[in-house]
Amino acid sequence: MQYPNNIKKNFTKLNISHSNRGMNLENALNLTNDYYLKKDRALIYKKPTPIGVVDVSYNNHKKIIEKAYFKEQSTLDYNGLYRGKYIEFDAKETLNKTSFPLSNIHEHQTLQIRNVIKHGGIVFLIIRMNDIVYLLTGEDYISYIDNNNRKSISYKYIEDHGHIIKMGYQPQLDYLSVVDQIYFKGE
Amino acid sequence: MQYPNNIKKNFTKLNISHSNRGMNLENALNLTNDYYLKKDRALIYKKPTPIGVVDVSYNNHKKIIEKAYFKEQSTLDYNGLYRGKYIEFDAKETLNKTSFPLSNIHEHQTLQIRNVIKHGGIVFLIIRMNDIVYLLTGEDYISYIDNNNRKSISYKYIEDHGHIIKMGYQPQLDYLSVVDQIYFKGE
Repeated sequence: MQYPNNIKKNFTKLNISHSNRGMNLENALNLTNDYYLKKDRALIYKKPTPIGVVDVSYNNHKKIIEKAYFKEQSTLDYNGLYRGKYIEFDAKETLNKTSFPLSNIHEHQTLQIRNVIKHGGIVFLIIRMNDIVYLLTGEDYISYIDNNNRKSISYKYIEDHGHIIKMGYQPQLDYLSVVDQIYFKGE
Repeated sequence: MQYPNNIKKNFTKLNISHSNRGMNLENALNLTNDYYLKKDRALIYKKPTPIGVVDVSYNNHKKIIEKAYFKEQSTLDYNGLYRGKYIEFDAKETLNKTSFPLSNIHEHQTLQIRNVIKHGGIVFLIIRMNDIVYLLTGEDYISYIDNNNRKSISYKYIEDHGHIIKMGYQPQLDYLSVVDQIYFKGE
């Protein structure tokens, strides 16, 4: 039986959230960002998914979307401000145990990663694989892309170059502690 | 005859774009940001308007939004990276000639302006009024808010504290030249 892509994705998410004490990566990051905001540690938000509106109606002074479709984000999903620095990242997960398929990262996202590096921002990927959450810097990601013709990143590369983000209660995924170590060491 | 709010807004926009050689503020900023991106000068994007999805359907592997409504942005509309710095701003316009109504700026946007200042980012408002486009720094905006109990900013305050953004052909609204003067002077 064939499922549409989006239903397949939901199945995948469901499987993932059954393992690893029910953590959903996107949800964990949103809660973490809310926590950082509340604690005045950083201003980091997930960008809304852009849509193309086809049809609207008006109900009692309010515009209602009657038909629309999701468009692709031209940047990474999360961005914001931390310790005076621009920060941007995306979160990706795979059930594949040996390699991370590069089809997960669109071409315009790779371009955005190159651009953020060039303009002096902090940029990285948060990758969940084998029930571990890694931070892979934009620099390490680009270095892999530019030096390999493969369609995936080997898990070994992620293990060797990625920085493990510890899971906890509050915040659920304290990725800024890893950012501190990588980008602000000695400060 | 009563129009719903959104239709009223569209009327207002239409009126505005009839004056001032047809410039639509949001459109001019989007074109300007595209130009900056193409010229590799900055990475600045308008955030998509967040929506609440009520109903979806699937058509040939594609998720279609069948009902949704617009939600309020919790940040300012534009953000990005310029010369290694985090930058965030919003664009506002009024047909009022003597004062800028503060009802145009939501409470959570004012809070966001305070937060960006606190965390070391660049934040400002782009205000069009009397066919002139001004950049008003977040600091000058907050200073007004904190020292006045009025429901609007007088045009005199905007004239005195705002920095005029010149309109041109490409880019249409070169606000980064003004940002250079205010935030990067002497560099």
